[in-house]
Amino acid sequence: MPMTPGEIDAFLSEPRLAHFATVGPDGRPRVRPLWYLWRDGAFLFTTRMEARHTGRDLMAHPRVAVSVASEDRPYRAVIAHGQPEVLGKDEELLLAISTRYGDREGR
Amino acid sequence: MPMTPGEIDAFLSEPRLAHFATVGPDGRPRVRPLWYLWRDGAFLFTTRMEARHTGRDLMAHPRVAVSVASEDRPYRAVIAHGQPEVLGKDEELLLAISTRYGDREGR
Repeated sequence: MPMTPGEIDAFLSEPRLAHFATVGPDGRPRVRPLWYLWRDGAFLFTTRMEARHTGRDLMAHPRVAVSVASEDRPYRAVIAHGQPEVLGKDEELLLAISTRYGDREGR
Repeated sequence: MPMTPGEIDAFLSEPRLAHFATVGPDGRPRVRPLWYLWRDGAFLFTTRMEARHTGRDLMAHPRVAVSVASEDRPYRAVIAHGQPEVLGKDEELLLAISTRYGDREGR
C-alpha cells in the first residue's frame, strides 16, 4: 500500500540510512550507505566530490537512485531516482546531518 | 576498521536487508531493498526475472552491487559487487529465506 506524502515525510525524518546507487565510469552499478537529510521534499547528502567514488561516478553519469527501508515490520521503503544537483560546501547542512544522527544516541 | 571474514559472516547472518543495485536498460542506476541469504560466502536473492525491473536489468547489464548496513552504532557495512549467477526456482532456497526473516518475530 503506497504511503501518503505525510507518511513519507515522517518515515524519512527518522534517522535512517539511505543506500545511494550510482553508475561507475565502467557502466557498473555502485551502492553505499549514506546519511541524508530529507528537507522540503528533497534528499540532501554529503560526499566528497574528488576523494570518493560517488563524486567521480556522478561526474560520469549524473543519475542516482536511493533506497531507504525499515528493517523491522511493518516493512516500508522509499525508493527515489533522478538527476542530482551538486551544491557547494554548506556548513549548516553538514551540521544538520551530523546532529540528526548524533542526537539519536544523545550526543 | 575492516571486518574479519568471521565478523562479516556474523554480520550478514543477521536478518538484515540488502540494498540491491542494478543498471537499467537506459543506463541509469536502480536500487531496492531485498531479503537475502548469505551462504558459503555468497549472497542469494530471489526475484522474478520477468515481472520485476531487477530481472530485466540483469538481462541488460549483468552486474550488481549490494549494500548491507547497520542502522545503529557501531556502524558497519558490507558492500559487494560482481556478476550474478542466475539460478532456477529453488523451493529450499525460497523457504530458507522466508524462514530466516519470519523467525525474527517468532513466526
